[in-house]
Amino acid sequence: MLQSTLLAVARGDAPADLLLRNGRVVNVFTGELEEADVAVSGDRIAGLGTGYEAASVVDLEGKFLLPGFLDAHVHVESSLATPLEFARAVVPRGTTTVVSDPHEIANVHGMEGILYMLEASEGLPLTVFVMASSCVPATPMGTAGAALEAGALEELLSHPRILGLAEVMNFPGVILGDPGVLSKLEAFRGRVVDGHAPGVLGKALNAYVAGGPSSDHECTTPEEALEKLRRGLFLYLREATNARNLVDLIPALTPGNRRRVALCTDDRQPPDLLDEGGIDAMLRILVREGIPPVEAIRMATLNPAEHFRLDDRGAVAPGRRADLVVIRDLEELVVEEVYAGGALVARGGAPLAWETPPQPRPPLPSMRVDWGRVALGIPAREGRIRVIRAVPHQLVTGAEEAVPTVREGQVVADASRDLLKIVVLERHTGSGRVGVGLVTGVGLKAGAMAGTVAHDHHNLVAIGADDESILAAARAVAGMGGGLAVAREGRILATLPLPIGGLMSGEPIETIRGGLDRVVAAARELGSPLHDPFMAMSFLALEVIPSLKITDRGLVDVDRFQLVDLWV
Amino acid sequence: MLQSTLLAVARGDAPADLLLRNGRVVNVFTGELEEADVAVSGDRIAGLGTGYEAASVVDLEGKFLLPGFLDAHVHVESSLATPLEFARAVVPRGTTTVVSDPHEIANVHGMEGILYMLEASEGLPLTVFVMASSCVPATPMGTAGAALEAGALEELLSHPRILGLAEVMNFPGVILGDPGVLSKLEAFRGRVVDGHAPGVLGKALNAYVAGGPSSDHECTTPEEALEKLRRGLFLYLREATNARNLVDLIPALTPGNRRRVALCTDDRQPPDLLDEGGIDAMLRILVREGIPPVEAIRMATLNPAEHFRLDDRGAVAPGRRADLVVIRDLEELVVEEVYAGGALVARGGAPLAWETPPQPRPPLPSMRVDWGRVALGIPAREGRIRVIRAVPHQLVTGAEEAVPTVREGQVVADASRDLLKIVVLERHTGSGRVGVGLVTGVGLKAGAMAGTVAHDHHNLVAIGADDESILAAARAVAGMGGGLAVAREGRILATLPLPIGGLMSGEPIETIRGGLDRVVAAARELGSPLHDPFMAMSFLALEVIPSLKITDRGLVDVDRFQLVDLWV
Repeated sequence: MLQSTLLAVARGDAPADLLLRNGRVVNVFTGELEEADVAVSGDRIAGLGTGYEAASVVDLEGKFLLPGFLDAHVHVESSLATPLEFARAVVPRGTTTVVSDPHEIANVHGMEGILYMLEASEGLPLTVFVMASSCVPATPMGTAGAALEAGALEELLSHPRILGLAEVMNFPGVILGDPGVLSKLEAFRGRVVDGHAPGVLGKALNAYVAGGPSSDHECTTPEEALEKLRRGLFLYLREATNARNLVDLIPALTPGNRRRVALCTDDRQPPDLLDEGGIDAMLRILVREGIPPVEAIRMATLNPAEHFRLDDRGAVAPGRRADLVVIRDLEELVVEEVYAGGALVARGGAPLAWETPPQPRPPLPSMRVDWGRVALGIPAREGRIRVIRAVPHQLVTGAEEAVPTVREGQVVADASRDLLKIVVLERHTGSGRVGVGLVTGVGLKAGAMAGTVAHDHHNLVAIGADDESILAAARAVAGMGGGLAVAREGRILATLPLPIGGLMSGEPIETIRGGLDRVVAAARELGSPLHDPFMAMSFLALEVIPSLKITDRGLVDVDRFQLVDLWV
Repeated sequence: MLQSTLLAVARGDAPADLLLRNGRVVNVFTGELEEADVAVSGDRIAGLGTGYEAASVVDLEGKFLLPGFLDAHVHVESSLATPLEFARAVVPRGTTTVVSDPHEIANVHGMEGILYMLEASEGLPLTVFVMASSCVPATPMGTAGAALEAGALEELLSHPRILGLAEVMNFPGVILGDPGVLSKLEAFRGRVVDGHAPGVLGKALNAYVAGGPSSDHECTTPEEALEKLRRGLFLYLREATNARNLVDLIPALTPGNRRRVALCTDDRQPPDLLDEGGIDAMLRILVREGIPPVEAIRMATLNPAEHFRLDDRGAVAPGRRADLVVIRDLEELVVEEVYAGGALVARGGAPLAWETPPQPRPPLPSMRVDWGRVALGIPAREGRIRVIRAVPHQLVTGAEEAVPTVREGQVVADASRDLLKIVVLERHTGSGRVGVGLVTGVGLKAGAMAGTVAHDHHNLVAIGADDESILAAARAVAGMGGGLAVAREGRILATLPLPIGGLMSGEPIETIRGGLDRVVAAARELGSPLHDPFMAMSFLALEVIPSLKITDRGLVDVDRFQLVDLWV
């Protein structure tokens, strides 16, 4: 019996499997640094102290021993990799537990997608907890591949790695008491419910908090963060590839409130994960900005563990999982070794060879485009049309108007005016429905880019300087079962296949990163000045972020929360 | 639908039921004092801020508004009152939630006793959460009225007010991996498991923590408290009638660890509850000893709420229970008004008239003494006998030896030598079994005292200067269905009936207090110098606290954890 072995090791009556000697333990319970040996039995910590014996002894030579880091909120799909490959990227950086929201794949494959992510994350050195995706689809103004109501989500409750309800982005629904939203909240009463309430303050915030969500990771100013902390929301500081709020929010942190602060990466792409890191990078920023190292480490360990009620981790203590991080310097915070469940799984920032379980078969691609019905034309009329303005490094867009360029009775893209055509092809049901509009700020001088990463409905979105290029890129993407592609007229310049849901590749994350670099470079060579034109494109279709967006149903005025005509 | 009303009030779209204006909210999330009005809808807080309207408006005139206090660990039975009357004592002092362990009545009536406590605490202004009693009976060396194994305890898990497993006092059982203890821990995995590990440190502590308990309230020194905090145990500071550890442990508290500290009263008798208070008295001591008031208040509110995962209380925040305490001065911490579930339930330290639910019928008395078989005689022999020494204000006893006084071939009590006879009559099964011994330090010059409060098996214990008085007192107790009595020869001097389990009275707590004062005074008039001879007697039968104790099975050498003969 494992438990009796653990107790015997703890008592000193049986040798440990592993003894980490001469380390300085970061004690997140007390905030102290503690010189203690740590005895490990199986995947658990048996005891701290002196006088333990073990089959395997490691001398830490005075280095610091930390609990493995917890990422409080992440969409694994944004790594473009499977959970296994995501783990290979984040575990060497010290993250041993993530609380994930699979709402990207859930919007494509529904419950099948969530179950795939659960299965694909079984048995990894990284513990992947899953929150049931609360907003599938995000709105009825776009066509997702699935709809998940309270009844379906409830079926997930019995899974041991389902912790609660994922970010409730439909904050108007909570505040106004929408019955569908309330039944989801009711179904998850007693579980942790994550929030997502950008800019919600005052009475609206009172209502949102009263509705049930207990966290927020969408603050952009210290004032907003402080008000949310005061009302009882746990604050997740976020540093995503496309939304970096950490430094801005540090002024909100005080000795009195920082116990209620955790860290999250939300959406990180392979280059960031591999070059910069994740939670470890956030810890370095916190310490650089003056937060005491042990306090910063608490935000990545005990704080989220307590918040998510994960009392089997988040600290170096008897009975907890032996997820451990070794570092040399508390200011530099460079992860040297990582133990997961008592096994050394990474060293020097690189994963060791893991015994990995067989990977499940992913869902069949949801790629149903009726090309015969796809029509990209915009018959010309008198007047002005609405134009989406892409804003660098922001999810929000501008809403502009312009007199279109017309050729042969059709509104056409006009790269000379930076007016590109943007199309969203519905890909889940084969309806042939296409939303067509114009966008400025993406900057292609020729050709087109297309992709199936298009938050949150993940239809096939494309932007281009001419219809031929657009169709070529879009067909290339469809032909891969999803992914990213760049084309110029009939020629395909670069592709990144993402056949799992049109969101993820089954390849090693380093390979994916190479492919991503290539498609981004191709788009930039076509003239886009954006750091990552694909990332920008993927949020132009997200109809819950202001101001003007586009779905397969057409343009969406997000401020008015309704579909609007292309013509003013 | 209540939830939609709450949200409408929070938004300001509907008037609140109650608005507390011009208060200074103690914000336990951030540690700040916040000037905010608090709007209440039904039993919940709807919002904080300004601009709310309400049917009923109370002007707090700048007074402080605190969350209701949580008592992290209490045996309600020690108040000698029903949960209703216990609530009448503690709610006016600001306690609106207790986490109780009904192990006194569980040792008498088993599951029926626990269910009675659950039923009798339904619908009170005080929320009584219950932990499933883990140690019934405490040991096989005494005869309790019931035995609760893992299977029985598991049945409690579905009750909404059962939080987890109560103090696991059998710490050797945890540390050594006793299968019965481990199955209880296993049955409550994922729930909060309270610990009880006096003096357990080092490797034994590692094993105890690895076993599952996550708190401790038995520390007596700052060093012990610090080590337990470091290993991850939540520290409950205790200030019971008979075990006061608060001031001793304050040196262990630091800004780095005090988030993991809560307060508990454990066992408090009516005079303390009514004269001194409970959690409020502890807060005053903490502040007097230099803990910042808001930090002290957190120990009685947010800290235990987080630890017990009670995210519906412990803070003044939207959606949480409107359990609120009004005080004028953060240093004096005198509770002026108390709201429970949005209703004003106490003012000026006194309960208001409550609408109380009908009280359930208590279990029939467990009072089965076969008087025909009860024999108190000790035939004389050569040699010395073991004598229990009662130690004032301590649960531990001394173990001494003496040559007995013998009369007519029998060892007799000899008040002139302060050698009194102590007897424990088994009262649960009618076995007629009696443990007989001698005790010194109780100091009666004549007569006898008897009672059914005898931790933890709660048999009928009596101490006296002669057998006639002992039998008279014991018969008086039995005749009441349990309680406390003092007799001198054939005459009954004072009684306190405690017919509910032999532990509690159904009378108002003020009446109980009067009765307790009378029996204590009677015992003291018979010569006992002890502050409360009944309290002392009630722990002389507790065979898990060193050194020499007595049960119905005879003397127990607790250091050796075995029964021993009266004769050396």
